[in-house]
Amino acid sequence: MQINIGTGIVNYPMPVALIGTRKDDIDNFMTAAWISMVSHTPPRIAITLGKHLTSTNIHETGVFSVCFPFSKDISKADYCGTVSGARINKSNIFSVFTDKTGAPMITECGLNVECRLHHIDKNGMNETFIGDIVSIYADETALTDGRIDFTKFTPLILSQMDTRYYSLGKNTGKAWNTESPMD
Amino acid sequence: MQINIGTGIVNYPMPVALIGTRKDDIDNFMTAAWISMVSHTPPRIAITLGKHLTSTNIHETGVFSVCFPFSKDISKADYCGTVSGARINKSNIFSVFTDKTGAPMITECGLNVECRLHHIDKNGMNETFIGDIVSIYADETALTDGRIDFTKFTPLILSQMDTRYYSLGKNTGKAWNTESPMD
Repeated sequence: MQINIGTGIVNYPMPVALIGTRKDDIDNFMTAAWISMVSHTPPRIAITLGKHLTSTNIHETGVFSVCFPFSKDISKADYCGTVSGARINKSNIFSVFTDKTGAPMITECGLNVECRLHHIDKNGMNETFIGDIVSIYADETALTDGRIDFTKFTPLILSQMDTRYYSLGKNTGKAWNTESPMD
Repeated sequence: MQINIGTGIVNYPMPVALIGTRKDDIDNFMTAAWISMVSHTPPRIAITLGKHLTSTNIHETGVFSVCFPFSKDISKADYCGTVSGARINKSNIFSVFTDKTGAPMITECGLNVECRLHHIDKNGMNETFIGDIVSIYADETALTDGRIDFTKFTPLILSQMDTRYYSLGKNTGKAWNTESPMD
């Protein structure tokens, strides 16, 4: 039976990433989970944030990264979502590399996305930063034939309403494959 | 070692939902995975689509639903992402209910979100439909203390680059809980 549970945050399984920014030579990483691809051509990804050092940094520098950690780094990832970069310098938590934009990416992450801000869509107290994807880096151990493979890359997933992380489970089937609803 | 894999779609774990629309008394459901919360107050969710019957319907009616199936309904969910509603009438695949907006929601889904279109953000060939969340419905078997519980609700997750579905795995820890990166 369907029950009306009101309105508010929708508790779908959210991908967990660290949003990287660099300002005044200090790298900052903030954990975020409101993330979505928003364009195929040109490739763009969107991240939605509240008011944080990260959003200030993106406004000022116009670049950011979206770095998806391996689930084994759950403590470091969670720390970056618990403690503000306005209070604590998080630049030494991870090993950092950069490419074209200068946005800091994380050597220990399975998947890193370098972005140049395209525009901002404002909704209430939140800002959605839509970025052009400049480059994608992946750890070699997370790849099969040059593509991210979730049997090798073990991302973190957030259940926001009860603030719990989940791992990804098993491969359950091929997508875009069902020609009849009774297959 | 980090490897540059170019640019394009970022293969993070994507939540799988059925986007519900109703036009001329025909319900349509399209599988989509580019989904994100974008506002806390007022609560808003964003879905990004290419050109489909669903996007045309949202333009014309101003309402839509975001319905997250249980993983056991993988075949029906995949079918709705394989076959176009412009060609096939999908109105009898699921048992449908409505509330305030008339957007069709799915009795068999674990989580249903009723939305009223707020605005559209265009990116290339894609449109991001940002909707005010009017109501959230959940199947009673998916809830603990009135909240979605991923140990009960088993959503589908998409690995887009290799077109595979995954289940959600185990609870791996409490979020917003780490006061030291070495915890």
